[in-house]
Amino acid sequence: MKSIDTEKINVGVVGLGLMGTSLIVSLLIAGHKVKAIAPIPEDMEDAPQRIREHLMICEDAGTLDRPVDCYLSQLVISEDYLLLAPCDLVLECVIEIPEIKRSVYKKVEAIISTDAILASNTSAIPISELQKGLFAPQRFLGIHWAEPSYFTRFMEITCGAQTDAVLAEWVYELAHQWGKEPTLLRKDIRGFVTNRLMYAVYREGLSIVAKGDATFEDVDKAFRYDVGSWITLMGIFRRLDYLGLKDAFETYNRLAPHFCNDEQIPPLMQNMVEKNAKGTRNCLGLYSYTPDEAKRWDEAFAAFNVDIYRLAAMYPSQREKKKTRV
Amino acid sequence: MKSIDTEKINVGVVGLGLMGTSLIVSLLIAGHKVKAIAPIPEDMEDAPQRIREHLMICEDAGTLDRPVDCYLSQLVISEDYLLLAPCDLVLECVIEIPEIKRSVYKKVEAIISTDAILASNTSAIPISELQKGLFAPQRFLGIHWAEPSYFTRFMEITCGAQTDAVLAEWVYELAHQWGKEPTLLRKDIRGFVTNRLMYAVYREGLSIVAKGDATFEDVDKAFRYDVGSWITLMGIFRRLDYLGLKDAFETYNRLAPHFCNDEQIPPLMQNMVEKNAKGTRNCLGLYSYTPDEAKRWDEAFAAFNVDIYRLAAMYPSQREKKKTRV
Repeated sequence: MKSIDTEKINVGVVGLGLMGTSLIVSLLIAGHKVKAIAPIPEDMEDAPQRIREHLMICEDAGTLDRPVDCYLSQLVISEDYLLLAPCDLVLECVIEIPEIKRSVYKKVEAIISTDAILASNTSAIPISELQKGLFAPQRFLGIHWAEPSYFTRFMEITCGAQTDAVLAEWVYELAHQWGKEPTLLRKDIRGFVTNRLMYAVYREGLSIVAKGDATFEDVDKAFRYDVGSWITLMGIFRRLDYLGLKDAFETYNRLAPHFCNDEQIPPLMQNMVEKNAKGTRNCLGLYSYTPDEAKRWDEAFAAFNVDIYRLAAMYPSQREKKKTRV
Repeated sequence: MKSIDTEKINVGVVGLGLMGTSLIVSLLIAGHKVKAIAPIPEDMEDAPQRIREHLMICEDAGTLDRPVDCYLSQLVISEDYLLLAPCDLVLECVIEIPEIKRSVYKKVEAIISTDAILASNTSAIPISELQKGLFAPQRFLGIHWAEPSYFTRFMEITCGAQTDAVLAEWVYELAHQWGKEPTLLRKDIRGFVTNRLMYAVYREGLSIVAKGDATFEDVDKAFRYDVGSWITLMGIFRRLDYLGLKDAFETYNRLAPHFCNDEQIPPLMQNMVEKNAKGTRNCLGLYSYTPDEAKRWDEAFAAFNVDIYRLAAMYPSQREKKKTRV
């Protein structure tokens, strides 16, 4: 297994949108040298400033050990894929269109060494599909980051059908150096874990709202103050252990016949998309917003992320548990 | 509509188990005079000490304005239902067995005035069912508290088929004086809101684990650090607005054919109940625990509750929004 000294590991990033610039910041903070490729010419202009701004947010929150410029000195940005030659790991985070991703992989694989790892930040396209037709499919996997990457611990590392599990385990170890609490999925599950489970919630929630049994506001309030009061500590299954399992068994039995089993998209969601509703982005969503309210929610989210990031760090991590077992 | 001055409102509580003693503390802190009935003789001995301990936890956390004894002076405990005579509202929180609850209601209704409200803390039995056969079914409703009641804002207020909605709205207003962010459900939904939606998650999660696609640990980690990073701020539907709705629509379409639609109880859960697994209570659950580890999770939960309670208070509440609308 390769060394886990981040300063000796060169990481390439292709795609400098919101996600790309944000995860570059995590990588720089972890000590990596980062080689960033701008596939869109405008990114050559905008990305450096965005990355600096992300770093300044971290500085303000007190999560940096060194001055901002010190981290920036470890970053090179170019349009030329040749820059990726020394990389041990290349992260692709371009738009979720398979053809575009494939053309990026072709350019990356032409440059990187045979033992370098190539990963996609996709949350939408199965890893096994993206892997097909690669020069070296066994070194390809999914590394799914959450936004903003420097204030979230979530990461899903997903193997495709052809992925070498040893490489995925190395990435799993490395991800802890990025401040993550990663999940390693040895199979390529549709929607990975959280999307799959949360969309099952959306199905049920939309069906209750559609029937007029509750409002969007009712559901959100109940989740904020019930689920929100324990999920960050426990997740869902440890919660069952905490409650004792017997009641849960009975509740399950009682509720199962009432679950929504529809496979079509709920009309409520269909309608919103037809109306070109983009939520807080265009003040048209499941809720109504004035521009001020939309801005207030965006600001609240930015602040909440820092707070919950700090709070979560004070509680038992599954990493600790793992350590005692190994 | 009745006055909302808590000091003038007498509240009765029947059932002095964990939940009963905990919610008495919320009521005392809110300024009510509380009349508590111990249907089980042992509770006459244990309950006063438990209530004092709850209050001392609040004192330590700095959430009390006055000394502990000051609150205790507003509480009377008895085995005699006559104590309930002056109550404006009586909360039943005895064991989840309909026959026992019905026998309690009979005793309560024989004492309280015709315009007093009677409520159950049930999270399991439909309100419309409990309501049948009552002397005055229109004044009966569900008020579902979360534990520990003095550090949680969650509350589901549920109308049964015969409930007078005006009374439910009065309770909804009053609940804000208890420091709650209540949800008012005008219909009696099976599992109310959070149980219904969370058990849809359990179905999907257990099916993924049963297939070997992820472990309990994977799912919990992903939820703690993904869902946990936003749910307390946003709930689920505002999250969709924040993400923009279009991607969610496409993700839904992609995932819907993969959702679990089983109606039987998952064998994983069935097995645990057959093994008499009670989670952290007997160190046998979905996870394995040493007694020390189980204790550590209990302690972590107690501490986390206080922290998340404080954190949540710093962010936009739906109550504020409502105020500006009314």
